Amino acid sequence: MSNTHDNPYARLERIFHEPGRLTIMSNLLGAIDGLTFTELKEACELTDGNLSRHLSALENAKAVHIKKSFAGSRPQTTISLSKQGREDFMAYLQALEAVLLDAAEKVAVQDGKPAPKRTLFSTRLANA
Amino acid sequence: MSNTHDNPYARLERIFHEPGRLTIMSNLLGAIDGLTFTELKEACELTDGNLSRHLSALENAKAVHIKKSFAGSRPQTTISLSKQGREDFMAYLQALEAVLLDAAEKVAVQDGKPAPKRTLFSTRLANA
Repeated sequence: MSNTHDNPYARLERIFHEPGRLTIMSNLLGAIDGLTFTELKEACELTDGNLSRHLSALENAKAVHIKKSFAGSRPQTTISLSKQGREDFMAYLQALEAVLLDAAEKVAVQDGKPAPKRTLFSTRLANA
Repeated sequence: MSNTHDNPYARLERIFHEPGRLTIMSNLLGAIDGLTFTELKEACELTDGNLSRHLSALENAKAVHIKKSFAGSRPQTTISLSKQGREDFMAYLQALEAVLLDAAEKVAVQDGKPAPKRTLFSTRLANA
């Protein structure tokens, strides 16, 4: 039995893998100051209920911060990545890239072509 | 509301997205003549029960063919991708790549770098 640490499929953190959560985390990755609930809902094309449910799961996993405040007299919810959430999600993306490379390599081998080499995230993480 | 067809997160076919099924499909992608149950189990690092369960789901979705035969007097199960399964999985990988590119772009924008462009699968599909 090989080491599961080397198996990128086994390294896909399940908390992020659900497509709705993937789009939430990805959108938060691009927003250092966070996004309001409404902005995030529109960016992710999720319903209020789905977004709330996913945010609870991500907050329980300490991946996001959820801050309630007021914009004038209107209540406003702002969501941002936690430091831990950002690190864990970058590691998830690295595993996802390894999965994609593995599949691309299998296609290339079958076609008699050289295996592709890509490092969208691997290099970044090594330098982080 | 934008067209969900343009949203790669919404295009992630759920039948393939589960990590165990992802590794099964990826290993079958590299095996034109199929793999025996034992070969697939070892390649995927799954238990007999998990592999059986995932294969049933993939067979119901018409993504794989499961053939029972004999190797000498021993029964043998051989699993291979169906034509439809291969096409659908390649489309899934294309969506997965778009998801990864979207995340990489968000990181790059934040770092003030140009957005990365990768086409591991997109080009292949266009030429298929």
